[in-house]
Amino acid sequence: MTPPGGRRVVIVGGGFAGLGCAKRLAKHRDVNVTLLDRNNYHQFLPLLYQVATSQLAAGEIAFSLRKLFRNRPNVEVKMTDVRSIDPEAGIVTDEDGRTWAADAIVLAAGSRPNYFGTPGAEEHAFPLYSYRHATWLRSRILAVFEAADRDPTLIERGALNFVIVGGGATGVETAGALADMIARTMTAEYHHLEVHAARIHLVDLGHHLLGPFSPKAHEYAERVLRERGVELHLDTKVAEVAPGHVKLGDGTEIKTRCVVWAGGIQAPELAATAGVPQGRGGRIDVKDDLTVEGFPNLYVVGDVANIPGPDGKPLPQLGSVALQAGVSAADNLLADFAGHPAKPFKYKDKGIMAMIGRNSAIAAMGPRRREVHGLFAFAAWLGVHAILMTGIRNRIQTFVDWAWSYFSVTRGPQNLDRTEATEIDWSTDGATPSVTTAAK
Amino acid sequence: MTPPGGRRVVIVGGGFAGLGCAKRLAKHRDVNVTLLDRNNYHQFLPLLYQVATSQLAAGEIAFSLRKLFRNRPNVEVKMTDVRSIDPEAGIVTDEDGRTWAADAIVLAAGSRPNYFGTPGAEEHAFPLYSYRHATWLRSRILAVFEAADRDPTLIERGALNFVIVGGGATGVETAGALADMIARTMTAEYHHLEVHAARIHLVDLGHHLLGPFSPKAHEYAERVLRERGVELHLDTKVAEVAPGHVKLGDGTEIKTRCVVWAGGIQAPELAATAGVPQGRGGRIDVKDDLTVEGFPNLYVVGDVANIPGPDGKPLPQLGSVALQAGVSAADNLLADFAGHPAKPFKYKDKGIMAMIGRNSAIAAMGPRRREVHGLFAFAAWLGVHAILMTGIRNRIQTFVDWAWSYFSVTRGPQNLDRTEATEIDWSTDGATPSVTTAAK
Repeated sequence: MTPPGGRRVVIVGGGFAGLGCAKRLAKHRDVNVTLLDRNNYHQFLPLLYQVATSQLAAGEIAFSLRKLFRNRPNVEVKMTDVRSIDPEAGIVTDEDGRTWAADAIVLAAGSRPNYFGTPGAEEHAFPLYSYRHATWLRSRILAVFEAADRDPTLIERGALNFVIVGGGATGVETAGALADMIARTMTAEYHHLEVHAARIHLVDLGHHLLGPFSPKAHEYAERVLRERGVELHLDTKVAEVAPGHVKLGDGTEIKTRCVVWAGGIQAPELAATAGVPQGRGGRIDVKDDLTVEGFPNLYVVGDVANIPGPDGKPLPQLGSVALQAGVSAADNLLADFAGHPAKPFKYKDKGIMAMIGRNSAIAAMGPRRREVHGLFAFAAWLGVHAILMTGIRNRIQTFVDWAWSYFSVTRGPQNLDRTEATEIDWSTDGATPSVTTAAK
Repeated sequence: MTPPGGRRVVIVGGGFAGLGCAKRLAKHRDVNVTLLDRNNYHQFLPLLYQVATSQLAAGEIAFSLRKLFRNRPNVEVKMTDVRSIDPEAGIVTDEDGRTWAADAIVLAAGSRPNYFGTPGAEEHAFPLYSYRHATWLRSRILAVFEAADRDPTLIERGALNFVIVGGGATGVETAGALADMIARTMTAEYHHLEVHAARIHLVDLGHHLLGPFSPKAHEYAERVLRERGVELHLDTKVAEVAPGHVKLGDGTEIKTRCVVWAGGIQAPELAATAGVPQGRGGRIDVKDDLTVEGFPNLYVVGDVANIPGPDGKPLPQLGSVALQAGVSAADNLLADFAGHPAKPFKYKDKGIMAMIGRNSAIAAMGPRRREVHGLFAFAAWLGVHAILMTGIRNRIQTFVDWAWSYFSVTRGPQNLDRTEATEIDWSTDGATPSVTTAAK
């Protein structure tokens, strides 16, 4: 086997896919890897909702990329915003016009929220697709409670109404965790606030929550959420998000200062710069070796890719798909450097799961997607997340740390400071969450 | 003893002094306590520099006030900014004109940086007197390293120069911790950056660092810092802080994007609203019972007060003074409610100490201020901070948690996100740390 000496690989994005790829390549000291990310940390996205609801500290889901590759001299981390990709020339260009030449480019740039043209959503809703989003949402949730505690008349004006858009895993998990937070934490900590006046609304266009699961799972999720006081608006679209309210397709208007957008994702703008065909959601269609037709040195992995599954349909946007695809892309490009044929990517199905609230999870696993609910599913959920995190930190420490955090209910910080609290303009209906626009 | 039934106490500020007072009063269920703070958390100020240098996570020095009084129905926490105090009428007024009537007011509003009129300091330097300051400074330190890593020409323009103003405990501790961070963490994590080009400058008007300590301690501190590469500018004033440089009194100009202001504190603006005489640093002079002459129902404690010491001189602005004074104010106002005489406040000297860098501390303890250096001082330092924290969290858990954090060098998060990184304007000399102005 010819050693792949001195080859340069540029990986764009340090999520599950990019990290899976970089970690595999790190062992090959004669491959020079450059990992580019807008932030200097990996974000463990499946647990964003736990940060938003003060169950985990933000730092517990963010991992320094430099620390991860501290002892890997052949992996260079650069914090920068990549603006374009030229797969033909093998060139990646950043915000300052700086370029990196590569023998292989791995595009693992993740996703961004898809607002589907909903008026006001981009301006006024809080998305939940990044670490920063999670901390902003956390601040907003705490800020409305503090504001209502100071001025109870704000409750009538919707201060304690929460609207979550999207009934997929992110929306369901956020609704469940928020209900837990209100019932367990807020009720105990606000001695004079009518916390029971808080309302959580979950809105989805579909007829059921958690679409990819079975009818039995739909019923379970809906029952658990209803029991925890979440009001479901199914078969309902969001017509408009305004500074102080949300209008639903059925005419309902809900006063609120906190709209969570979990309504879907699309490919980032960067995907369009590669000059290759984009499929559903703006994602780039890849072949089964994870390269793009006609561009043998461009690998696209993770949420930015439409990766063909066993039935020909694209695999879902899941952390476990991204992690495995990243590793597979590394193996394939190493094989290519060595003049060997690539191996088609085969996703080992880790199942799908969602946490509906403390101790109430749904997991669908194995080839026949056998479903479990309740405590066993909760254990499975813990296990799968521990495995995902394993790719990132030391296995045992992570699991112990993290499980411990999870079970110590009140651990996540609820600190809110003045600069975060004062950005809601209660004087008008003009409560623009300026933080969301800053995210762009 | 007449029970102090139904009396109302309003405490302004949830720092060591306010918390010490509130915790003591919490046991007296028939006293209604309202604790007002701009933030909803207590800030453990002695360790701010550890957050700024990524040794501790920010959440580890911030403690939810609501959690602390979760099971104390007679203590109400309100997150608001108090704007004025009328000790005669017993009225406290907040930013929205809301008022609280009190049978006793405890003013424990802390301090704010004192720039002593230094041109540009307020606009361009990073103060280090609050949790939020610490996270801003942390972001700036990380941001200049990331920027220099992307564009090494920025090093010549001062990207890796750090200027710390003030040679007291805060300045010395920050300089030492920053030197440690650069030597241990940055050197290992930036594979291609010339980290050794980083320079730390410590500037003080005095002839020695750590004024209140002995000549031997001065020498020790100066030697330890010099050994760690810190450049000392003693007998030197800061003439100007500009967006891209600092000018010293001796004409030296140091290019930098990171100036830390540890140059002194003064009373907050609120102190002036009480209409009582202000002494040195704008602080309010109190009698030995911690009330103000002529206002028997106004107690002033912590950094906002000039509390007379045994020699008649005011006690220093220390956490242990504040904590003890807060408790003493609670005892005195309870005595007053019951018609008993107050007891003069007697500070039990816990000593003074400073951490010059990992494993190098100085402590001066006991009635004769016996000084110890090195490892024993380090142990003493750990112990005193553990005792201070005890006032806040559960004793054992805190100490274990915290000591563990301290010894696991790389634990504090170094996450920097794009919104934090992009606020330095390298294109001109106009690098305004917009975050500092937001602090006001």
